[in-house]
Parts: sequence; C-alpha cells; structure tokens
Amino acid sequence: MTAIGLFGAGGRMGQAIRAEANARGDVTIVAPDAGAVVLIDFTSPTIFDAQLAQALRASLPIVVGTTGLSSEQQTAIDEATAEIAVLESANMSLGVNLVAHLVREAAARLGPNWDIEIAEMHHRHKVDAPSGTALMLGRAAADGRKIDLDANSERGRDGNAGPREAGAIGFASLRGGSVAGEHQVIFATEGERVEIGHRAESRAIFAKGAVAAALWLKDRPAGRYTMADVLGLS
Amino acid sequence: MTAIGLFGAGGRMGQAIRAEANARGDVTIVAPDAGAVVLIDFTSPTIFDAQLAQALRASLPIVVGTTGLSSEQQTAIDEATAEIAVLESANMSLGVNLVAHLVREAAARLGPNWDIEIAEMHHRHKVDAPSGTALMLGRAAADGRKIDLDANSERGRDGNAGPREAGAIGFASLRGGSVAGEHQVIFATEGERVEIGHRAESRAIFAKGAVAAALWLKDRPAGRYTMADVLGLS
Amino acid sequence: MTAIGLFGAGGRMGQAIRAEANARGDVTIVAPDAGAVVLIDFTSPTIFDAQLAQALRASLPIVVGTTGLSSEQQTAIDEATAEIAVLESANMSLGVNLVAHLVREAAARLGPNWDIEIAEMHHRHKVDAPSGTALMLGRAAADGRKIDLDANSERGRDGNAGPREAGAIGFASLRGGSVAGEHQVIFATEGERVEIGHRAESRAIFAKGAVAAALWLKDRPAGRYTMADVLGLS
Amino acid sequence: MTAIGLFGAGGRMGQAIRAEANARGDVTIVAPDAGAVVLIDFTSPTIFDAQLAQALRASLPIVVGTTGLSSEQQTAIDEATAEIAVLESANMSLGVNLVAHLVREAAARLGPNWDIEIAEMHHRHKVDAPSGTALMLGRAAADGRKIDLDANSERGRDGNAGPREAGAIGFASLRGGSVAGEHQVIFATEGERVEIGHRAESRAIFAKGAVAAALWLKDRPAGRYTMADVLGLS
Repeated sequence: MTAIGLFGAGGRMGQAIRAEANARGDVTIVAPDAGAVVLIDFTSPTIFDAQLAQALRASLPIVVGTTGLSSEQQTAIDEATAEIAVLESANMSLGVNLVAHLVREAAARLGPNWDIEIAEMHHRHKVDAPSGTALMLGRAAADGRKIDLDANSERGRDGNAGPREAGAIGFASLRGGSVAGEHQVIFATEGERVEIGHRAESRAIFAKGAVAAALWLKDRPAGRYTMADVLGLS
Repeated sequence: MTAIGLFGAGGRMGQAIRAEANARGDVTIVAPDAGAVVLIDFTSPTIFDAQLAQALRASLPIVVGTTGLSSEQQTAIDEATAEIAVLESANMSLGVNLVAHLVREAAARLGPNWDIEIAEMHHRHKVDAPSGTALMLGRAAADGRKIDLDANSERGRDGNAGPREAGAIGFASLRGGSVAGEHQVIFATEGERVEIGHRAESRAIFAKGAVAAALWLKDRPAGRYTMADVLGLS
Repeated sequence: MTAIGLFGAGGRMGQAIRAEANARGDVTIVAPDAGAVVLIDFTSPTIFDAQLAQALRASLPIVVGTTGLSSEQQTAIDEATAEIAVLESANMSLGVNLVAHLVREAAARLGPNWDIEIAEMHHRHKVDAPSGTALMLGRAAADGRKIDLDANSERGRDGNAGPREAGAIGFASLRGGSVAGEHQVIFATEGERVEIGHRAESRAIFAKGAVAAALWLKDRPAGRYTMADVLGLS
Repeated sequence: MTAIGLFGAGGRMGQAIRAEANARGDVTIVAPDAGAVVLIDFTSPTIFDAQLAQALRASLPIVVGTTGLSSEQQTAIDEATAEIAVLESANMSLGVNLVAHLVREAAARLGPNWDIEIAEMHHRHKVDAPSGTALMLGRAAADGRKIDLDANSERGRDGNAGPREAGAIGFASLRGGSVAGEHQVIFATEGERVEIGHRAESRAIFAKGAVAAALWLKDRPAGRYTMADVLGLS
C-alpha cells in the first residue's frame, strides 16, 4: 500500500483521484504531511509555491497537475529538480500524451504552408484559456517545426485582425456544459486538412494517469520527468 | 437574359459569381452602371457606402453580401429600403440559412442551462473574426432565447478569463488553408450536447445563392429582405 | 416518495437509474411486484413480453426503454395502450429528442437532392446496429420527407454496392471503448452539408430522462406516449 | 515538358489530372500510345489488366490510382515490377499518406484494449465501400499492431451482430452529396479516444499528387513504389 499525499483533495480532480485510489486498492490517500511517500498537486497557481516548498522540505517526489503556472514557477520547478523528482504535466492521460507525440511528428513532416490550429472545449467552470493541454500540444507542434511557441501564437482572435500570420499556431477555446476535455489539432493547407484529436469522457482518465505517475515517480532519482517518460513515449 | 451589375467583380466571390453566371446562361454580368436591372455587392465595409448610394441614385434593387458592416451602415440600409429593395445576408447558401432556422428553434426550446458556443473555420486570408455567418447564427440563437446578442457575447477568450458567464453566447474562430467556410453551433449542458453545423465545400454555393437572390429580388417592391424570404424559410 | 418498479435493475441502465433515484431523493426503486405505482423496463427483446404482460395484469403505467423490439412487440404495445399508459422511447434524453425534432424539420424543408446519412458510435458491448436512437432519428427524417423508412434504408454498406440510391437514408455504426452514445445526421448535397448531432457523456442523462418520464406518466390516462410529450416538443 | 499517357482521361480523376497538367505547364497529357514516357491509370478493376499489359509491352513506368483491385491483380502488379516501375496507391495526397504513417505509429503504441474504427464519407456516385483509402488506413493500423487486416476486419455492421470482437478493425462508409473524401481513424478505450483524420476539399489534391508521382517515377528503376517513397515518409 503506497501512501500518496494529495494537495487539492477537495477539488474536482482531487475527488477523482480519491475515487481512483479506492478503485485500485493498492494506494491510500493521506494528508501531505501524514506519512506520504509521494505527493500529487492539483491546486492553482496562486497557492502552488507553498506546495513545492513543502515537497522540498520533506524531500518527497511530487506529481504536478496544476496548470497555468508562470515562467517563474516553472523556473522554481527546474531548480527543485536538483533535489527531488518532479513530474509536471498538463494532462496525464495516455491518449493526450500520444496525441502530443503524433502532433510533433506531423509538424516536423508537413512544411510551413500547412497552417496549425488548436481548438479545445471544456466545461463551463474552467477559468483559464487556452487549456494547459492545448498549450502542451502547441509546444509539441512548435518543437516539431523548430520554432518558438510564444513568438508564433495567435490567440483570442476577434475583430478585424487581418489575415493569418504565416507560420502562426492558432488557439481557440470553447466552454460549456460538463465537457471533461476535448482537443483537436488541425493542419490545413490548400485543398486538404489533417486532424489529430483527443476526447476525454470524464476526469477518471486523468486521475488514473496521475496515480500511475505517482507510483512510477516514487522510486526515481531527483530530476524533471514527463508523462512521456511514464508511458514510454519519449 | 437578366443583366446583373456586380460590385467587387475582381474578388474571390466576384469571380465565383461570374462562373455561376456563365454556368447558368440566363444572366449576364455587367458593370453596375451599364444597364443592370439588379445589383450584387461583395466588397468591403470601407467602400460600401458609395455602392449603396449608387443603387439609390439608379433606383435599383441590391443584394448585399459584404460582411463586417457597422451599425451606422446597417441604419443606412434601413433608410434606403424606403426607396429600393435590399437583401442583405452574411451567407447566401440554402444550408446555412436552414441552420440559422434550426438554431433559433433549438435556442427557443432548450433552457438557459444549455450553454451556446459557435465555432467557425475559414481560409487563411479572411480578415474579420468572427465570420459574418457566425454572427448571423449568434443572432438566430439570441432571437430564440429573446436576449440581446451584443450584451451576451463572449469573444476571443484568452488568459485567466474566469468561468463562463451564464447565458453567454461564445464565439471561436479558426483560420487556415483554403477552407471555404465551416460553422458549428454547440448547445452544451450537464451530460450532453446538441450540435448543429454547416460545411461549404467551395464558394460556388454562395455564388449560386447570390444569383438566385438577385433574380428573386429584381421584381420585389422597396423593402428589406433576407435569404430566409428567398428560400421560404421565414 | 414515488415507488418505481424497475425491470433490468442489474444492467448498465438499471444501475444508472438507481443512482439517479438516490440522487433525487423523491423516488424509490422497488421490485416490480412490491408496491410500485409505475414501471420502468430496460431489458431485452427476448424477455420483454413477460414484462408488458405484468404491467397489464397490475394495471400499471410503464416506461419502455428496451430497444430492438420486433414489429409484433410494437403491435402488442399498441394493444396494451387501450388499458394502460405506455411511453416507449429509444432514447430518453432531452437533447436527442430535440435533435429528432430538428431532423424532421430539416428533412421537410430540404429537397430530395439532399442525401440523408446517419452515423452513430457506441461502446464495444452494444449488440445491435444501428442503435435504437439512430433508427428513431431515421424515422424522424422519413416523417419529414413523407417516405417510408424501411423501404428507403441503406444499411451496412460493404463491397461493390453501386452508387447511392436517390432518396435513401443511410446508416453507419461505429463501436468502441466506452462511448455512451453519439449520433450525427448529415444532409449532403452538391457543395454543402448540414449536420445535426448529439453527444451523451454518460448514461446518467438517459436515467434522468427515464425517471422524469415515469413521474410524468404515472398520472396519465391509458394511451401511447413519447418523450416528445414529456418534453413538450410535439 | 514531360509527356504523360493517361488511362481514364474522361473520368472525374482524369479531368482533374488534365486541369492540373494545364495549371503546371511542365507536363502534357497524351494518349497512352502516343509518345508517353510515363503512364497514369485511373480506371476500374474490370479493364485494368489491359492497361498493365500495355505498360509492360511499352516498358513504361506506370502510376496506378485505380482502387478495388483483386488479389490476383495485385499479384500481377508484383510480377510486372520485375520489368517496370509501378507506383500503386489508393490515395495520392500528402495529407492522407501522412495520416497513414501516424495511424501505424498510434496502433503500434496503443495496446489491444484500444479499439480501432475507420469511418469515411464520399460523394453519392462512389460505387465501392469501404473506400480504397479506408482500406489503406486499415492496413496501416494492422501493420502497426502486427495483425492481418483481412482476418480482423468488421465491415458493414447491421442487425444483432453481437458485441464488438476484441482486436477487430471496424469500417463504416457514408455516402452523400459531392464530398471529395473524408477519413477518420478512431482509437477508443475506456474513458478516452484518439482520432486521426483527413479532409479533402476537392479532387485537385489527388491529381496534384498523381502528377508529382509520375514525375518522380519516370526515372526510377523497375520495382514497386508507394506514395510514402515519393513523399519521403517511409
């Protein structure tokens, strides 16, 4: 029985992780300071720093699922990985991580006259746009093209914005109902389109992935890891 | 043989209208001041006023396909319809106009706990977002709900925008390749979604609709008309 | 507290109905012969006849969600409605029933040169194809066109089947994973398509609809009813 | 100026190839026996044998786009490649061939509990189902899984067919309007789906690919080639 310390136990993802732990039977969810051997964090950028500090103090590996972290917070994670194992991922499902792999591959093989667009839909309560997963897919596309994502993003199109920038990666966010998470990456050129997408039916797959990641991470040396490592996709 | 005066003959839609006229054989495209009995305008908001003035001076019915008109320009059209017949539509295809009808119906029957989102994709050269057709579908949804579209639109989501406004109608715009025009209206509530969409394979259907509209309009009395009138959908 | 007698309590839908009853708090699920005031049946065509007979013997209204019933079984339902209230529907969600309404409307307004295709996807365990809901949507389309569905269906296309029959309504069935139920009706003509679809995220919406239907049905006089009656769509 | 001999010049694809040749300006379409240096065949299985024989007699490389060939005809092609260069492909677009590559990759990395389904839509005149391209994508999936496609296909589902076979690759065909060709490969497991798809807006992209293939093939030694060779995807 592995004791997992959970930050954000009362949130939507926290509840899904409890349910997954109950269903598995080989892990137990405890308070982060009550004997955990590995931590999982699904909170928000405003309180994330304290959680990372606690992981460092306790010398515990930590799985980070919080999205919307600032570049300062990403740097703090990088520094922490000199001492502890950290796996940070915007999306812990096997399917999405495979999609990221396929998007990188497609972006590398299709020339710059194939425009890249990323659309996502989530439930009405989601506060950030684009989703962390959409940005993760955008980075995969930018990697494949060997360009910088931030310098090539077109977000929140509205008004007379003029024609599309050549080479841009576009993002569009839909919100509504209880959609657990849907993402589609579109490569469009004269006369044809290639589409690579993912649909999550519920948060259960993210919880399943987070627990699998925690079990994988607990025995690793200090360093920064991704779900691609857990899934053998890298 | 009906002589149609075409403003914007050199643009993408202008060329498609010429091709449609050639294919039909019962209409001929002429310069707007060279004996036309009806006008078609596919230009841009910056030069639209002159075209409307010319239609008024010549007392000719006019089909307006230019999108992105200001509310002042819409008022000018309203005033013109005291003297001439004007049919203004963001989209002249039968399919899209039926979709608008279905969206109005769905919005009227589904309660306010069904969130409404409108996504559209067009070719890389399109300069305005959302598309005129997306806004037309948004107005249909707002009509069905008896709310004001402008006061309830969520456009260009980006950043930490907070949760979705209850009752809002969201818009998202994708751009890429040579897509002639695709629109999807999504009604999403707890546990389910209804989707109503349209796909245009090429501009030919818009040209076909514009010519059909011109032939229908040329014998009408002064007034404001829509494609729903031409198609018997209203 | 309304006592609902449930046939098929151990199946997927039966369990979803129990969960919905617990969540509501104003209904209780009992064995069909233990004081129920209304019955719900989610079983299979092979054992359906006994359930209908029991409803007749006990003079209880019954909601029938079993799909794949034969025409003889439909006739038996028709005869039973002289004595008891029966609501039979392939799909109890509000969204799907609205989609059926929109499909009927679209089929009535689009001419015969618009081909109608119906695609559906369900989980890997589903045994019948097309789904009962797909057939319900097919009937709505056939009603709108004033044609007979059975005489105009194209199902299970495979091999060198020749070009599409003019006027046919086509069906295609996908199976995989745990998909709760997705349906799409496509109207396709030269150059454009109209698409009307529905996505269910889980069986909870069907259970919700079935319980709502039971509560509505328990006070009706003998007769045959549909979800459109419950939802005010007819 | 390269002289391409075209079999099937009067068909839909033949006309698209003529248009592409005119647009390029560096190739000319001639009768197959009038000085061609390379042949293109878009005909039908019933007359294909004579075309292959003619290519052998004239010792000319040949691009074969005809779909629905029998296994005997495939064997005949294999034998011919001892003497001439043959490139046979169900689909000559860059996008579809990349999709086949991605599907092989995804099928190799996702375990057998991910069900594979392939859906396609084409215009109302298409006579064979599934499309040659759908079968090509099915072979890519089967290759990735190291299974035999013919022994694992589920086609034309209809009636009470029972639950899905574990490990099967399913096919579903939609027909309607003027759709140039759309394909989608769905990987579905408990709780999530990965989708890889392609949309062709018109036949122009296939014609473009066929001419590019002919120019590439004319200088190759005898052997069997695929579009993946032309596109550098293999």
